[in-house]
Amino acid sequence: MNPETPWTRQHLIGIEDLSKEEILTILDTAKSFRQTLERSNKKLPTLRGRTIVNFFNEPSTRTRMAFEVAAGNLSADIITITGGASSLVKGETLRDTAANIKALNADMIIMRHSSAGAPKYLSRRVDIPIVNAGDGAHEHPTQALLDAYTLREKLGDLTGKKITILGDILFSRVARSNIWALTKLGAQLTVAGPATLVPKHFEQFGIQVCHDLRKALDGADAVMLLRIQHERQNATHFPSIGEYTRMFGLNKERASWLKPNAIIMHPGPINRGVEIDSELADSEQSVILQQVTNGIAVRMAVLYLCMNARDAIYQDFRSQQQNPENFE
Amino acid sequence: MNPETPWTRQHLIGIEDLSKEEILTILDTAKSFRQTLERSNKKLPTLRGRTIVNFFNEPSTRTRMAFEVAAGNLSADIITITGGASSLVKGETLRDTAANIKALNADMIIMRHSSAGAPKYLSRRVDIPIVNAGDGAHEHPTQALLDAYTLREKLGDLTGKKITILGDILFSRVARSNIWALTKLGAQLTVAGPATLVPKHFEQFGIQVCHDLRKALDGADAVMLLRIQHERQNATHFPSIGEYTRMFGLNKERASWLKPNAIIMHPGPINRGVEIDSELADSEQSVILQQVTNGIAVRMAVLYLCMNARDAIYQDFRSQQQNPENFE
Amino acid sequence: MNPETPWTRQHLIGIEDLSKEEILTILDTAKSFRQTLERSNKKLPTLRGRTIVNFFNEPSTRTRMAFEVAAGNLSADIITITGGASSLVKGETLRDTAANIKALNADMIIMRHSSAGAPKYLSRRVDIPIVNAGDGAHEHPTQALLDAYTLREKLGDLTGKKITILGDILFSRVARSNIWALTKLGAQLTVAGPATLVPKHFEQFGIQVCHDLRKALDGADAVMLLRIQHERQNATHFPSIGEYTRMFGLNKERASWLKPNAIIMHPGPINRGVEIDSELADSEQSVILQQVTNGIAVRMAVLYLCMNARDAIYQDFRSQQQNPENFE
Repeated sequence: MNPETPWTRQHLIGIEDLSKEEILTILDTAKSFRQTLERSNKKLPTLRGRTIVNFFNEPSTRTRMAFEVAAGNLSADIITITGGASSLVKGETLRDTAANIKALNADMIIMRHSSAGAPKYLSRRVDIPIVNAGDGAHEHPTQALLDAYTLREKLGDLTGKKITILGDILFSRVARSNIWALTKLGAQLTVAGPATLVPKHFEQFGIQVCHDLRKALDGADAVMLLRIQHERQNATHFPSIGEYTRMFGLNKERASWLKPNAIIMHPGPINRGVEIDSELADSEQSVILQQVTNGIAVRMAVLYLCMNARDAIYQDFRSQQQNPENFE
Repeated sequence: MNPETPWTRQHLIGIEDLSKEEILTILDTAKSFRQTLERSNKKLPTLRGRTIVNFFNEPSTRTRMAFEVAAGNLSADIITITGGASSLVKGETLRDTAANIKALNADMIIMRHSSAGAPKYLSRRVDIPIVNAGDGAHEHPTQALLDAYTLREKLGDLTGKKITILGDILFSRVARSNIWALTKLGAQLTVAGPATLVPKHFEQFGIQVCHDLRKALDGADAVMLLRIQHERQNATHFPSIGEYTRMFGLNKERASWLKPNAIIMHPGPINRGVEIDSELADSEQSVILQQVTNGIAVRMAVLYLCMNARDAIYQDFRSQQQNPENFE
Repeated sequence: MNPETPWTRQHLIGIEDLSKEEILTILDTAKSFRQTLERSNKKLPTLRGRTIVNFFNEPSTRTRMAFEVAAGNLSADIITITGGASSLVKGETLRDTAANIKALNADMIIMRHSSAGAPKYLSRRVDIPIVNAGDGAHEHPTQALLDAYTLREKLGDLTGKKITILGDILFSRVARSNIWALTKLGAQLTVAGPATLVPKHFEQFGIQVCHDLRKALDGADAVMLLRIQHERQNATHFPSIGEYTRMFGLNKERASWLKPNAIIMHPGPINRGVEIDSELADSEQSVILQQVTNGIAVRMAVLYLCMNARDAIYQDFRSQQQNPENFE
């Protein structure tokens, strides 16, 4: 795709690790792939004969399916292992599970894990690419990359653009990855929501923390809503759903505080009538479904770049390795 | 397959909607595909590079697998989402789920749903083909099509042929779709079974309702048995399983009332010794397993025709659409 | 691969049925496939257009995934049915389920079943190849084949080689299949462990039964550890886990009793610190992960050989069969 790419990482663990140039390399590569999605035959031969394992110990249909489609578009074989159904993990260490997946001839592991740090831990112990598909409250790098892709598609260069992330920031891996991505890309970032969910210490990331919705939205180029987790309803620091909607739910009036033609984003699944007014979700300003499609292209780029980097690293190693010929 | 086909529908929601000519177009197309199933390499390149999503919120192995095989034979990629395991649907409306599946670049949704009408509802709101794989007590169109295929394969033109559907008609989507299909194809149809399961009001479909088994079977060209649901055993309008078998179970003696060489059908899974005598299920007259194989061909035809119709409808649209080039 | 192969079986039910020559045919065929695993594109066109069904009524990720990878490497389509999620089996006999899978146009069934004998039963009633992926406490033939492959890779000809299987032998299908394989290949076999798990009557297989660990390991060329099932902890004939480790766990000191450079094997998943010392599992002597990779090659060989045998048997049959042309 991009023969002069500076990309040399075989793993994608988090946006925190990436330089601005690396982020842009992914986004530019994704742009090429995005065009292939418009063809009626979307299949590219790029990763034919490679096996990619989706290793998800947390439930996910959306992200899992996006990676399946991305891998399929590149002609890779994909095998999905979900934690619950997996005897692979019974009494076995995470490292042994991953070593076994590699020994089963997998070329790459896409990993969602409930524990922050699990993908990084594995990337140091298993010598095939690990792509983080969300780890605990740590990072969800491909979500941030598809968000950045969509923002750039709509707004152009993000330098100085005013972007607000609104909602349950505290434990959100989506927020965390987006904070890294968007600050590196030069945006002027604000996180907003109730004080219990958006603590002041997020200022350490060099961003603004704002508990006044009007101020947070005023003149913004884009607002990114986060899903309100119904299951946190009873947590002591969480307001009731109704109260949240009354105070911070995005509706038409509040959307008018944004810059004209500002875009409205959401990682999905959306709660209509909770964090976003139903009509607004279907409006011209909403790019929610475009985010989903862009996510395919971004994940194709990540699979492609990491596999390429791996091939470069192990090219010599592979030719030396193997074939102990004392087999009689 | 059939360049002069009059087929223009991108969705297959129910047999009720179809004309006789449309049904015959599907069956003729299926006949071509049926022959390819005899090859050792059954793969056709027809839908290469297309992604089909099996979206099943009711458990099903048989129908799901038949669609997976059909899609695979046409070289499509197929991704299966089962309702229970799906975080896609948590708190999300059905319409949003489907919009997301489309945004994930799916070209078609095969949908089984516990609610009658769900596929029709979606077909009006999501602009990719929706194929109904069974919705509540409403319709199961591909089952009726494979039944019609098998009947025509064995009996030729169905005009005037005496066909009896026997069993739990009341809430059966299989019965309902077959009533539409077989009356449109000109058969002389009877539904039979205990009065509580086969109410008189089915006569409104222009068919006979019969509670006397001898009369129902007498001289019939084919009998189609429906599965007796063990789980309905305690419902007030349902006889005991033993009583059902005694009164309406098909055994050798009763099968002799049929026309000689009449065929015995069942959508499966069969309860040996309940709605059908075990020996009879394995007899020459039984075409139960041929129905299953024909189901592959019929589903290949449906996928092929609906995808073609979709391509025709959106050909212009696709070339206009897309590629907002303000991406910097 | 091996045009002069004497292989004529379409089913692989157990190692007990195989001659030494048949075992060697599989291992030699696997050797050719093993080399293809080193390529970056591992795909061979061998089984393109064939559909293989993984029919597992017991949970398994490891074996299921190994067969998925093997089938994928040979370009077959693979469809997985797991017992729990399967409505296919509700009230249906095992034979009917298999007949339906065949009617769904499957070319082969890979079957894991909790009942010993289920694959053999089916192989007599369904005329597509049945490959046993583990049946009750009976056999797990592909595990024994990958173990034999690995042993021959490391030790050469097994004639006279001292091999010890250590652990819970009594109900182990892995032990049973290995006993058949290794004695046929001429190895000098010992089974060892606590008397309650390794009864004297195993001597009827022409092997040694030994309850003294030192004697069992002394001068052995290889030791094969079996997994200690935590869930058997409370069974009356089972010592506590801690007691087992103290008496029979393999540690560095005990490994020194083996022949220098002896290899250490385990079918996985391993319990570090229970049946094997953690450091030892990662040592040069451990071939545990090589077993896993060899398992892909061995399963490719089994799928290839059984499908070939099937094709030879049914070649004439297929050309005669089919196409009843009374379809109007």
